[in-house]
Amino acid sequence: MKKQLNVGMIGYNFMGKAHSNAWRQVGRFFDLPADLTLKTVCGRNPKKTATAAAQLGWAGTCTDWRQVIDDPEIDIVDITTPNNTHAPIALAAAAAGKAVLCEKPLGMSVPECEQMTAAVEKAGVVNMVCHNYRRVPAVALAKRMIERGDLGERIYHYRARYAQEWIMDPNFPLVWRLRADVAGSGTHGDIDAHIIDLGRYLVGEVKEVCGLMETFIKERPVLADTGAELTARAGQQMGAVTVDDAVSWIGRFENGAIANLEATRFAAGRKNQVTFEINGSKGTLAFDLEDMNRLRFYSNADPADARGFRDILVTEAEHPYVGSWWPAGHVIGYEHTFVHTFAEFVTAVVNGKSVHPTFADGLATERILSAIQESAQTRQWVTLC
Amino acid sequence: MKKQLNVGMIGYNFMGKAHSNAWRQVGRFFDLPADLTLKTVCGRNPKKTATAAAQLGWAGTCTDWRQVIDDPEIDIVDITTPNNTHAPIALAAAAAGKAVLCEKPLGMSVPECEQMTAAVEKAGVVNMVCHNYRRVPAVALAKRMIERGDLGERIYHYRARYAQEWIMDPNFPLVWRLRADVAGSGTHGDIDAHIIDLGRYLVGEVKEVCGLMETFIKERPVLADTGAELTARAGQQMGAVTVDDAVSWIGRFENGAIANLEATRFAAGRKNQVTFEINGSKGTLAFDLEDMNRLRFYSNADPADARGFRDILVTEAEHPYVGSWWPAGHVIGYEHTFVHTFAEFVTAVVNGKSVHPTFADGLATERILSAIQESAQTRQWVTLC
Amino acid sequence: MKKQLNVGMIGYNFMGKAHSNAWRQVGRFFDLPADLTLKTVCGRNPKKTATAAAQLGWAGTCTDWRQVIDDPEIDIVDITTPNNTHAPIALAAAAAGKAVLCEKPLGMSVPECEQMTAAVEKAGVVNMVCHNYRRVPAVALAKRMIERGDLGERIYHYRARYAQEWIMDPNFPLVWRLRADVAGSGTHGDIDAHIIDLGRYLVGEVKEVCGLMETFIKERPVLADTGAELTARAGQQMGAVTVDDAVSWIGRFENGAIANLEATRFAAGRKNQVTFEINGSKGTLAFDLEDMNRLRFYSNADPADARGFRDILVTEAEHPYVGSWWPAGHVIGYEHTFVHTFAEFVTAVVNGKSVHPTFADGLATERILSAIQESAQTRQWVTLC
Amino acid sequence: MKKQLNVGMIGYNFMGKAHSNAWRQVGRFFDLPADLTLKTVCGRNPKKTATAAAQLGWAGTCTDWRQVIDDPEIDIVDITTPNNTHAPIALAAAAAGKAVLCEKPLGMSVPECEQMTAAVEKAGVVNMVCHNYRRVPAVALAKRMIERGDLGERIYHYRARYAQEWIMDPNFPLVWRLRADVAGSGTHGDIDAHIIDLGRYLVGEVKEVCGLMETFIKERPVLADTGAELTARAGQQMGAVTVDDAVSWIGRFENGAIANLEATRFAAGRKNQVTFEINGSKGTLAFDLEDMNRLRFYSNADPADARGFRDILVTEAEHPYVGSWWPAGHVIGYEHTFVHTFAEFVTAVVNGKSVHPTFADGLATERILSAIQESAQTRQWVTLC
Repeated sequence: MKKQLNVGMIGYNFMGKAHSNAWRQVGRFFDLPADLTLKTVCGRNPKKTATAAAQLGWAGTCTDWRQVIDDPEIDIVDITTPNNTHAPIALAAAAAGKAVLCEKPLGMSVPECEQMTAAVEKAGVVNMVCHNYRRVPAVALAKRMIERGDLGERIYHYRARYAQEWIMDPNFPLVWRLRADVAGSGTHGDIDAHIIDLGRYLVGEVKEVCGLMETFIKERPVLADTGAELTARAGQQMGAVTVDDAVSWIGRFENGAIANLEATRFAAGRKNQVTFEINGSKGTLAFDLEDMNRLRFYSNADPADARGFRDILVTEAEHPYVGSWWPAGHVIGYEHTFVHTFAEFVTAVVNGKSVHPTFADGLATERILSAIQESAQTRQWVTLC
Repeated sequence: MKKQLNVGMIGYNFMGKAHSNAWRQVGRFFDLPADLTLKTVCGRNPKKTATAAAQLGWAGTCTDWRQVIDDPEIDIVDITTPNNTHAPIALAAAAAGKAVLCEKPLGMSVPECEQMTAAVEKAGVVNMVCHNYRRVPAVALAKRMIERGDLGERIYHYRARYAQEWIMDPNFPLVWRLRADVAGSGTHGDIDAHIIDLGRYLVGEVKEVCGLMETFIKERPVLADTGAELTARAGQQMGAVTVDDAVSWIGRFENGAIANLEATRFAAGRKNQVTFEINGSKGTLAFDLEDMNRLRFYSNADPADARGFRDILVTEAEHPYVGSWWPAGHVIGYEHTFVHTFAEFVTAVVNGKSVHPTFADGLATERILSAIQESAQTRQWVTLC
Repeated sequence: MKKQLNVGMIGYNFMGKAHSNAWRQVGRFFDLPADLTLKTVCGRNPKKTATAAAQLGWAGTCTDWRQVIDDPEIDIVDITTPNNTHAPIALAAAAAGKAVLCEKPLGMSVPECEQMTAAVEKAGVVNMVCHNYRRVPAVALAKRMIERGDLGERIYHYRARYAQEWIMDPNFPLVWRLRADVAGSGTHGDIDAHIIDLGRYLVGEVKEVCGLMETFIKERPVLADTGAELTARAGQQMGAVTVDDAVSWIGRFENGAIANLEATRFAAGRKNQVTFEINGSKGTLAFDLEDMNRLRFYSNADPADARGFRDILVTEAEHPYVGSWWPAGHVIGYEHTFVHTFAEFVTAVVNGKSVHPTFADGLATERILSAIQESAQTRQWVTLC
Repeated sequence: MKKQLNVGMIGYNFMGKAHSNAWRQVGRFFDLPADLTLKTVCGRNPKKTATAAAQLGWAGTCTDWRQVIDDPEIDIVDITTPNNTHAPIALAAAAAGKAVLCEKPLGMSVPECEQMTAAVEKAGVVNMVCHNYRRVPAVALAKRMIERGDLGERIYHYRARYAQEWIMDPNFPLVWRLRADVAGSGTHGDIDAHIIDLGRYLVGEVKEVCGLMETFIKERPVLADTGAELTARAGQQMGAVTVDDAVSWIGRFENGAIANLEATRFAAGRKNQVTFEINGSKGTLAFDLEDMNRLRFYSNADPADARGFRDILVTEAEHPYVGSWWPAGHVIGYEHTFVHTFAEFVTAVVNGKSVHPTFADGLATERILSAIQESAQTRQWVTLC
């Protein structure tokens, strides 16, 4: 008989919706070593939480995350709340011996992440930070191809960009993602973190960084207490934007590759564009999340007169994860990356052995984020130990 | 209190998996006027059906589709079985007063489709044929744009192609889709039907057609009774392929537009490519299902020096259906087209009023399919009444 | 010492400009077996011809094409005049023992083309019809790849389209290309001819055809005698458009491949789009003239998880023709296709041996054009002998 | 009567070939205020120079560039020699009152460029540095669109990359472009200079920079004296590569836009890729030189449900320069950018008034190049005055 795992999720907004979907779907498409129950969703507002539970498929609700921790039937704690709450919840979950899945960025600072990582390691609980883009099939295929040598022995360049446009309107209000006290940083922790994580996954460890950060729109309308006001009105109170609108940085990996990364929320027309290009001694890989079912690959091994970037439609049974879904050519979407991630996490929980990206990976990314932030403030290169 | 609707589904293979997912997901993402229960799945093999029910989320099973019809608690009958079984099931469902959702092609012939259409109309039951590509957001957006005049008053060309490659290997076995007695036709009813339906949806009624059909590989290995043998062995028995591998045809719409369509399973590298281009007097629209989150649009209304095909990433709240899913730029996939279709169908069932594409649409498509088949046999143009 | 060849060109408009450029440039970039002199350009209007000669680089002028034929120093006669003048000039040139390069379509009818072909063959003069798109490097590479078996032993599909938009405005005047008496046909001879020629070049001989032709705008403003009026005025005289605006046809090649072709001047946004796709048993090739420095190639021989359409930038020394121009990645344009064609023609003239596409190729294309026209009129399939 | 201008060109290799072509072609396609004569080409090797003159269309030759300067009939001196010779030739040409066109980079250092700029300004001679990519039609269109406000009032990002692959083979020899004494720098002056110039042209002046430079392959086979040896042999002498293989930098423009640029010769599959993206408050422009006939444009002014990157095929009469060539949709290539540049330069010479990019522009670019180089050495941000 299959093991039974009960999940408790803290938070139910954008990420909560994506996670709930993945919890519901993962057992339908992947052959898991456990059956899952969506036991409890937790939110501060009881009415909204109840509505969310009904909509998202959770059996029960609570309004204090400690109740999730204290529930002996909960096996997995899934953290999807704003960044400044990740640490206390994760620490408590680890102490309670729960497996922990935490949205990125892991914590608000390197010390916080160190504390979180130490806690899960000491407690011996399975842990993961939810860098779901590692399990876009095209990204997982890129990893496989690099490992089998398709790009050659040396990597020369990792160039990545995460570009959005959703706050370009100067009247877009001061939501929590634009406040340093809640979010820690802006584009940096929210989206730069993703392409840094992909760089660590695909290329290797970062040795040194030098970057700049910029806030293009320095004041925005303050949100009313209700949270309901999403547009500015005449005479409305303005508040300072305390996070970055964009970050741009260069660096070096330990293996000698050069890094060039950029994250911005001010690129008109780029809705959720994650692009990277990796140039190796034998070929190149390129990816674009807005076209996420494809991977582009140039190989010097092709005949001299027939070389070109291959546009691989990553929907074949031979490709990572997609065999569980639909026939070749039937594309999947954003939400599926969470399903793949959760399939691996559930297996890890049953095996009692964490798989990447662990909290230690989240900490490593935080160290890079922190170094870039320091570099932007001091206008100096910063070396990672 | 919301109405409660119970669904019974006949068949559980590829289409059954896609339909089950849509039945499970539709209420999670769309605000439906009814709650749905996946009550019964029906298949001939009891053990396989039980496994499918558990995997796909159905409460009960049966092995005779008449049990679904006879169950007074079933409100919706969903038909996903091979083509030659659509008619008897649909006729019985209509007679029993059930709402009917039927996979395409509707039936095996024009008379059969006429009978089916007459039955649902006489019974007054809500009916739909599952041409899910109408509800790709990009396709629905194309429809909206044509209706508001973005292409101008005249349409000159509808050019479409459905291209696959999955049977190019001559040793690929004689599956049911390659047998005329079960499937009726090959590419014609299976995939040409889709682009004909899109033509009727987006451009209008077809007036006359002239086509050719071709079977490139005329014999294939016979499948063993177990259905388990998917590759040919030396000395294996060969059987005749009795359906078309490709169909190519030209025609005219009633509004004067020219049609040029092609369906093939012999296009290496085209996994599941549905492309169309519609040229109107003020602009052009182009679509590719392998890139289904995008719609390309050229407008003569743009400034003379800044005209070009717009690559619309159809993931905005302003676009059909996608606002129910994720933020802008977070793409969706193949399976979502069924969810959109089912959301409309459920609403139709509650309203007691069918929405497109109805059985009458399925019949209209069958008439075109039949006319092309006649044309290919007689080598004559065939006029539709 | 190099042979010296003198060229006389009849006509100096669009094609005359492109040909003149090629005559001037070919010796600068290709190592020819002869030196070329642009001796005479011929046009009916003495003043305009003199202006053209100065602009285009011709040493002398004349106003009667017979003077070019009668000039014993002229070695090559280049015909760029409207279609109804090709035959008399070519016949005279052949009779005078000149090498002849003739713009496409070769003649106005099959008998005319037969007469022209017989004449050059009887006279033993080197002859060529200017289907310049054969020598787009990407097209020449496609030919090479097909010949070496990159697509496999069987070709299943040849699908091509030539799409333009330049006469979509109903007020665009009745220029000579829209009059059957001068042009013979519309899109058919002007642009369908190109993709038919490419089909014969790349796939093989055509066995049977069935097509339709359409004139969307049946009347247009008559051009004033001056030829200067390019827009319609109120009360302006209207004249009947006597050629096709679009042609669409299906057919079969002798080798069993299916043909599906379309030519139109009513595709908004398609400026000069020549696209083709060839599906073979081992792979696919695709081309788009608006992106003419690229060839797309899908190969079943690639590893199963790394297959995809290769986007070959055809600018390498290994590629046909381009090594004579610039380093890799430095693209060329439309005009270069004439230079490549003329390089081959000049070599042929020196060798005394015609190279493809000869007048016989022009005749073969005319036979197909004529068969399609007959098919469109009779609404019957037409078989080519 | 038209003015007559005589040109003398120093150097005849890759750039000499491109320049010669432009000198020959410009008067054929553009209505110039002067007639041009290709009077003298100068090279050190008399035999090779004579061959080049015949091939490239020059009336005479010389072996000492001072002869070009001393020739009173020469009006224009065109410098296409290696970088360390630009200054002496340009200084002499200015002193002799010649108009000067100089390949980029202008000089080897800021002081050298200052001296060159002062010289042409003092002499009052028309001068230009050959940043030909400014006159790619798509780039000139981008400039027009930015100036008329299509991107809005603020520019947020300029992101550019110049990527090649031609020296990735470690056995590629130590050509002059890899030696600091002749070339000054590697990718930096050769190709980074181009995208810096485009940034200044399209976005504005640069305020501060911070960059890194890298040499991936530190030793290469020394070229034999003959210059004929292009591949390494066993036991061949190795020499140090003294220039950069890649450069990557970030910075800020005076108008607040962020710069992120990269130049590399180690990007497999990127033949001659110049890409840039400019994000403004109302839209985005994107360009790729390998696809140089196109410009991509996203506009917030488009209807909310029909926004997308427009793929503008820059071949219309309405677009800069291309009206002089061929009809819409007939693409041009790399060489045409020189023709456009020379058309403007010739007009400037006749008008006696320099047009951009002048030597002062070359100096400004050199200041940025130098600042980046200093930054890479000191690992500090460098502010431009």
